[in-house]
Amino acid sequence: MSRREQVQLGVLHLDRVLHALSDPVRLAIVVQLHHEGESSCAALDGGRPKSTMSHHFRVLREAGLVQTTVHGVTHMNHLCREPLDAAFPGLLDSIISAAARVG
Amino acid sequence: MSRREQVQLGVLHLDRVLHALSDPVRLAIVVQLHHEGESSCAALDGGRPKSTMSHHFRVLREAGLVQTTVHGVTHMNHLCREPLDAAFPGLLDSIISAAARVG
Repeated sequence: MSRREQVQLGVLHLDRVLHALSDPVRLAIVVQLHHEGESSCAALDGGRPKSTMSHHFRVLREAGLVQTTVHGVTHMNHLCREPLDAAFPGLLDSIISAAARVG
Repeated sequence: MSRREQVQLGVLHLDRVLHALSDPVRLAIVVQLHHEGESSCAALDGGRPKSTMSHHFRVLREAGLVQTTVHGVTHMNHLCREPLDAAFPGLLDSIISAAARVG
């Protein structure tokens, strides 16, 4: 089974989730989505190069943290809270709280 | 300031903590130390090569998760809970709980 298929089937891997969140840029995306709900890639890129951000969004999607949907020419992202909270209760909240303490 | 000096000064970096715990072998070490308290490197290596384990212990130490003390020829490790819980309350417990759900 490919990694993409595993994500589609809702199989969340703790190591992949923690790896995705161990990067400050990706963690900042997740925190922003937590606060703002659905956001476009452009609103989340912080002026970083598109190729860099494509990589970060792919890692977040493959970890099952973020889902991207296409509306016309806009890619909209949202946090996949429910499956993550069901698989690992309290994990995402504790990491978002920790991120808030870092600033 | 070197990374080692930062750890010595008690500066914990969330990204480094999450990266350290994103590896299944390192996460298993942390879970075992959580349950058993102080353990020798030999009791934690799971039969893996010494060079591999040296790398994993170094990453855990540099993240501020584990402290190693030398008693004669034995290296004893313990979890640095207090500074971690003070810096990021609930984080380690939520990750240990998540690891227990993975099995």
